[in-house]
Amino acid sequence: MKRLLYDLAGEDENFRFSPYCWRIKLALAHKNLPYETVAWRFTDKEAIAFSGQGKVPVLVDGEKVVADSQKIAEYLEVNYPNEASLFGDPPSRALTQFIRAWAEQVLQPAIARVVLPDIFFQRLAGKDKAYFRESRERAWGMTIEDFVAKRADYLAAFEAALTPFRTTLAAQNFVAGASPSYADHIVFGALQWARTSSGTVLLKDDDRIVDWMNGVLATYGL
Amino acid sequence: MKRLLYDLAGEDENFRFSPYCWRIKLALAHKNLPYETVAWRFTDKEAIAFSGQGKVPVLVDGEKVVADSQKIAEYLEVNYPNEASLFGDPPSRALTQFIRAWAEQVLQPAIARVVLPDIFFQRLAGKDKAYFRESRERAWGMTIEDFVAKRADYLAAFEAALTPFRTTLAAQNFVAGASPSYADHIVFGALQWARTSSGTVLLKDDDRIVDWMNGVLATYGL
Repeated sequence: MKRLLYDLAGEDENFRFSPYCWRIKLALAHKNLPYETVAWRFTDKEAIAFSGQGKVPVLVDGEKVVADSQKIAEYLEVNYPNEASLFGDPPSRALTQFIRAWAEQVLQPAIARVVLPDIFFQRLAGKDKAYFRESRERAWGMTIEDFVAKRADYLAAFEAALTPFRTTLAAQNFVAGASPSYADHIVFGALQWARTSSGTVLLKDDDRIVDWMNGVLATYGL
Repeated sequence: MKRLLYDLAGEDENFRFSPYCWRIKLALAHKNLPYETVAWRFTDKEAIAFSGQGKVPVLVDGEKVVADSQKIAEYLEVNYPNEASLFGDPPSRALTQFIRAWAEQVLQPAIARVVLPDIFFQRLAGKDKAYFRESRERAWGMTIEDFVAKRADYLAAFEAALTPFRTTLAAQNFVAGASPSYADHIVFGALQWARTSSGTVLLKDDDRIVDWMNGVLATYGL
């Protein structure tokens, strides 16, 4: 049985930058499920029309098609119950929802403000540029050039947003304690997007956060 | 055996406003441990000198004296293992550390900026006023009157800081899921401080957050 993940790519098909796709790549690794990725660009709407919507990640698991990272994670948890749990027991799962809300409403917007121009000018597939500019400028109510002008402020805000996460990692190996769980995958996805998309160094090699990221990858032999 | 908690009070000894003391009052209730409180003011340093430091909460549990809310919570968890767990299993405990870091580094500073003048002008014991003004103005690098001048901005920042917490509560009864745990106690302490200290209504009676606060209290018959 073939397992395929449609995964957002840049002009270089090896540049994979979606935080939501990263969550699922780590979730699949966590459950020891082999898969192949299909490089996908924002404008490849017809390539995933079979999923009934227009965004990635899309997982094709044999006969089953699941879109939306949270739905995919829940699908994996229910359908592969014999593998390591992504969420842990019910209280851990509930606590993970706060981490998810923080990542999506605080951390990821802080990252987006920094990397949006880098992605547009340096990483994006040429055919995606018009779509990306139009959709992002409408969503944010500012131009891509406006983000460039404010970069210094946005870099400071990104660092400030990390404060509670840094405190957490100062006292434990992973967000979920001794080993990573989906809470780690969520934050990793955001920071992998930050690190790989930015034209400047957002996290230095000796940063505790980079150490944690390497620890997450090493857990899964990645 | 008598169990005593030294608990920060205002001019009115029934006004108990420390977020850290609230954590412990809920933790004691969670473990079904009866206790009495001793109203304590910032300048009553000699009254808790026996604890070897100068801040509350201080718990006197028979022969044992424990200061610092985190140490008290850990003491209760270890010494009353047959009662309901405060932290849950190790992953839940680790995830709770992120909630704690967020509460202490994001939420509580946002609340402090709003309620600091209210506490000073309306709630504080007269004998604490000089200490409070001096220590807070030094810590923040601004005068109490500066906080008053910026209140509108600080109210907006407080509401913005709540965003990931509101999202979490939209989908579940408590931070820890079906019933409250120490993660809930931490956030409750911060918001109880906010609600009871402010001279204006920070959270309306029909706010989902107030509903959750009432749910926490009701769980313990408070």
